[in-house]
Amino acid sequence: MQILKQKILQSGKIYPNNVLKVDSFLNHQVDVALLAELSKELFRLYKDSGVTKILTIETSGIMLACLTAQVFNVPMLYAKKTKTSNMSEDVFTAQVFSYTHYKEYTIYVSKEYLSSSDKVLLIDDFLANGFSMKGLVQLAQSAGATVVGAGVAIEKGFQGGGDILRSLGLRIEAMAIIDSMTEEGIIFRE
Amino acid sequence: MQILKQKILQSGKIYPNNVLKVDSFLNHQVDVALLAELSKELFRLYKDSGVTKILTIETSGIMLACLTAQVFNVPMLYAKKTKTSNMSEDVFTAQVFSYTHYKEYTIYVSKEYLSSSDKVLLIDDFLANGFSMKGLVQLAQSAGATVVGAGVAIEKGFQGGGDILRSLGLRIEAMAIIDSMTEEGIIFRE
Repeated sequence: MQILKQKILQSGKIYPNNVLKVDSFLNHQVDVALLAELSKELFRLYKDSGVTKILTIETSGIMLACLTAQVFNVPMLYAKKTKTSNMSEDVFTAQVFSYTHYKEYTIYVSKEYLSSSDKVLLIDDFLANGFSMKGLVQLAQSAGATVVGAGVAIEKGFQGGGDILRSLGLRIEAMAIIDSMTEEGIIFRE
Repeated sequence: MQILKQKILQSGKIYPNNVLKVDSFLNHQVDVALLAELSKELFRLYKDSGVTKILTIETSGIMLACLTAQVFNVPMLYAKKTKTSNMSEDVFTAQVFSYTHYKEYTIYVSKEYLSSSDKVLLIDDFLANGFSMKGLVQLAQSAGATVVGAGVAIEKGFQGGGDILRSLGLRIEAMAIIDSMTEEGIIFRE
């Protein structure tokens, strides 16, 4: 989407180790009006897929997931990174490797809220190496749910996770795909 | 709000140690349509306060904060519980005591996104002992911002945090205040 690409070019900052700092509008301070536009585009793309639930992972996927759930008029569900005391004992789990913290962690979803009758749309703010998205697919599959596809704000295409997941059959709609990100600038995939 | 009280009575589960499990609609699976109703009520209550920013704390306050920011048409900002690598070095911090984990932790907001010209509405899903809310007030005050008030979904009135903060001058609007929560049922404050 042009509106997101413009925002990335205006406000995004490139740091070493392929870090794109977009915390002025995406994952710290949040431009909710912009995300609402992305959620409408995701609705346009997935409106005929019979989506019954939006699934994301805490924390930074939650805002887009929440607004997308509102447009689809379905519940959202976020996988947790810690098993809180008031969480049901019966959980689906998946392992996710965090490149940022260089360790594997477990994500949890209560079995009460995901079932084989669900058609799930997976949402996240970023898709880079694809580890988080793979974890979400696994959670949904553990429940026997159908994954209709994924929607992300920014895909770092040069990190390859999105293309690997696509080759495995996952439909992924990224609102902006970055193919190259250097000191000379950002190049988006057409 | 009647709609929230009904939902709590229908779907909330009471556990030992004053735990109210509402993760079927508030903080794991999320009834976004319900939260959108709460956000509209918060807009009605605070629409004349000149709100420029919605401030919450990760994770479970984010959904209501996001929808409220949408209604007010202002950015939202969430305080982080870890200082991530792509966060600016210049941060406001506050200490928050977690009753759940029985330890104090630090919350962070980048100085770039909160200033003395901001009029801040604080949002959270729960208000119990008030420690998180106090941390948010401190963050806003560190920036010299004006706190116009707070909006929460569920206040556990019997835990007293809300009334202490009100006595210190903070305006708090809770969509449902629970005055008593026992095996015999839930009693709401009128």
